[in-house]
Amino acid sequence: MLLPEEVNVIDVVCRDGFQMEKEFIPTEEKINIVNQLSQLGFKRLQVTAFVSPKAVPQMKDAAEVVRNIERKPGIEYSALTPNMKGASAAIEAGVDALDVFMSVSESHNKANIRMSVADSVNAIGEVISLAEKHDKPVVINLATCFGCPFEGDVPKDNVIKLAEDFLKMGVEGIVFADTTGMANPRQVYELTSEFLARNPKANTILHFHNTRNVALANILAGLQGGVINYEGALGGLGGCPFAPGASGNVPTEDVVGMLEETGISTGINLEGLIGLAQYLEKVIGRTLPGQVMKAGRVCDLHPMPGA
Amino acid sequence: MLLPEEVNVIDVVCRDGFQMEKEFIPTEEKINIVNQLSQLGFKRLQVTAFVSPKAVPQMKDAAEVVRNIERKPGIEYSALTPNMKGASAAIEAGVDALDVFMSVSESHNKANIRMSVADSVNAIGEVISLAEKHDKPVVINLATCFGCPFEGDVPKDNVIKLAEDFLKMGVEGIVFADTTGMANPRQVYELTSEFLARNPKANTILHFHNTRNVALANILAGLQGGVINYEGALGGLGGCPFAPGASGNVPTEDVVGMLEETGISTGINLEGLIGLAQYLEKVIGRTLPGQVMKAGRVCDLHPMPGA
Repeated sequence: MLLPEEVNVIDVVCRDGFQMEKEFIPTEEKINIVNQLSQLGFKRLQVTAFVSPKAVPQMKDAAEVVRNIERKPGIEYSALTPNMKGASAAIEAGVDALDVFMSVSESHNKANIRMSVADSVNAIGEVISLAEKHDKPVVINLATCFGCPFEGDVPKDNVIKLAEDFLKMGVEGIVFADTTGMANPRQVYELTSEFLARNPKANTILHFHNTRNVALANILAGLQGGVINYEGALGGLGGCPFAPGASGNVPTEDVVGMLEETGISTGINLEGLIGLAQYLEKVIGRTLPGQVMKAGRVCDLHPMPGA
Repeated sequence: MLLPEEVNVIDVVCRDGFQMEKEFIPTEEKINIVNQLSQLGFKRLQVTAFVSPKAVPQMKDAAEVVRNIERKPGIEYSALTPNMKGASAAIEAGVDALDVFMSVSESHNKANIRMSVADSVNAIGEVISLAEKHDKPVVINLATCFGCPFEGDVPKDNVIKLAEDFLKMGVEGIVFADTTGMANPRQVYELTSEFLARNPKANTILHFHNTRNVALANILAGLQGGVINYEGALGGLGGCPFAPGASGNVPTEDVVGMLEETGISTGINLEGLIGLAQYLEKVIGRTLPGQVMKAGRVCDLHPMPGA
């Protein structure tokens, strides 16, 4: 079992976790959580989204969050920007990098962005040009890489072709996302090993949801496929609209826990991360799906009964 | 990524799941659930435990359960038997096989069974002799194979030596159990590949708890180590006393879901299993940790919004 020695874990809770929350999280609380995350060893944090405040009221304070977080040197602070308007606002607010997104499957892209795949590629091309003018790197997030909740199977060749198109367009990185928890380990291994064989220098990131409990197995498969960048969301916050009651984002602290126990260094303070997940649970006001935040680290032993 | 084509999944909910429940589950309900499980393609089911009714009142109807379930040909119905008294009662009630257990670590064995490891081996030896007289196969369940909540690390060599001692004593199979969710994929791969290299014909079974969300990743590692037998509990019922609120047993339907999606045949009816997990949730009266029972199978697609 060939595994890397070091892995880069990225937290996206302040975007992918918070955006599903109906109750507005106070701006100072969002800033506080980004600042706390900044102390734990991450090299990249996705901190907000510059989207329509009517469509996603939770993200209406995006510029204020970006302007007021404490920037720790060595961390890339990114924001999700769906279009030119969002990208301009994000650049003006001073983000380090832009995260753009679209779906590989036509029906999911239509449902989510109301565009064809080809039109999305063109629209994102304009955002990439804008970002280049301002020296901001762009990461493309490809949704439904491992299955579409409307169409079912998404051919691996479509995913690889689209990712390679974006490499040619000059993106800094590619996120292969399993938007609705449909991926399986064999599929992850086959996609990532083939993509990296064709594009050995591509900065490749995996984003799994734990909808069917398979997220950490998929990460193990991605590691064997050669991927060394993984996204998670603190506490596992953030659900899936198609699976009420099921888990959403893989909990960042569970990813770090598995990697560190497996002897793969993340540079992240797991104890601090567990404490922050427990704090987030209080902020959100309901039980979060993270397991390590409940069970503790493997090395946190217990006294013998009666001892 | 080398994976087997077929895997054998064993359900233990009626023992490892039910035994933690404080409210008594009516005997007819237990029998009903075993009978339903029998229709879904399993080849082995652990259906009860012959233990002290004072210590575990939930299991006081063990003989009645064994006597009244409908025996489906081709299924091995086993029961947990901690000692000679339990083993005699189980044989008298007519089980197909005995499951015995002990811990690899001294402190966990002391806390759980109040014996040293050496004394447990001797006591189990007597049960094996009794079972041989009645032509009943015995499976040894080794707890704390991947870590002890009191001692921490459990040396791999101790686990392998103990397992090989039991092979010499004539057991039909060996369960390596991760009693408190401490295992990691590298450790699972190293233990299983070394054990199977030394004992290629040993009937080897893995039993993981999802306490830290790593159970399915550990199963993926076990598959790569060569193990083709895995235990789970319907709905993920059954907790861990050291991790209040965290998951316990890996949900059988989530195991089957991952394996089938990965192209590994289990012979188990996943749709039926999901329905039975949803039924069990009603019987137990609280939300169970299973994810596939909430999210559905990967192939269960959704209509486009507005379609």
